[in-house]
Amino acid sequence: MALPDPEIALKLARGVSRFLENLGYGTVTEFSLATGRRADVFGVNERGETVIVEVKSSPVDFLTDGKWPEYREFCDYFYFAVAVDFPREILPEECGLIVADAYGAEILRASDLVSLNASRRKALLLRFALTASQRLRRLLDPDL
Amino acid sequence: MALPDPEIALKLARGVSRFLENLGYGTVTEFSLATGRRADVFGVNERGETVIVEVKSSPVDFLTDGKWPEYREFCDYFYFAVAVDFPREILPEECGLIVADAYGAEILRASDLVSLNASRRKALLLRFALTASQRLRRLLDPDL
Repeated sequence: MALPDPEIALKLARGVSRFLENLGYGTVTEFSLATGRRADVFGVNERGETVIVEVKSSPVDFLTDGKWPEYREFCDYFYFAVAVDFPREILPEECGLIVADAYGAEILRASDLVSLNASRRKALLLRFALTASQRLRRLLDPDL
Repeated sequence: MALPDPEIALKLARGVSRFLENLGYGTVTEFSLATGRRADVFGVNERGETVIVEVKSSPVDFLTDGKWPEYREFCDYFYFAVAVDFPREILPEECGLIVADAYGAEILRASDLVSLNASRRKALLLRFALTASQRLRRLLDPDL
């Protein structure tokens, strides 16, 4: 069984990010939540709706990850994203499902909506805004 | 009288951005407001407080700009930022004042607090989050 492959995971995360942007989301990868957990891709759209996409590069990557239910409390929509040859039947049916490659993605099964409460939404939007702007500044002003 | 100098303005904006980041703000330059106006530097801190800093590279740059009062409605704190040799007496006393160079800045006169209402604050934070994340993605994924 193939080990988790960071290279594949990065490519899938890029395809997922492009896909979400086409839907009007701003995205950040490796987004740290208040719990210290990192969401692979976190997106926010103009209505303030949030989505977390966890990228699984291999079955092992999913089977050794007991922490995905914790993400569910930090987004309105939750998806797993996998490559087309991933054995999708091992993924939980109650989660949204995205098939991705390095260049894009599509939704195979829509996520349920579990609406954030207002204070958590506000906190997540602020954290997202600070993370994105600080990373942007590191790239624009690398001497910093 | 010197004409507005975009090179100087960029340097001052960089110094202002570094200064605001040291205070815990995430920043975006050339931030488009809903009105279409662009704020030179827009900052948000972890409490969701917002600041706009308008950079003035020369007296002409200030004297030909009739639009600065419009920015006041889109931030909690408003500052002009100028170089150390700028004739500061021509700037309105009711605004905050920052002296900057390419590497940093300091506050000479604190801005009044004019608190945003909740719905405008929310809209600004969302716009900021989308602007920052989309610019970040353009840099990370230039083929997009």
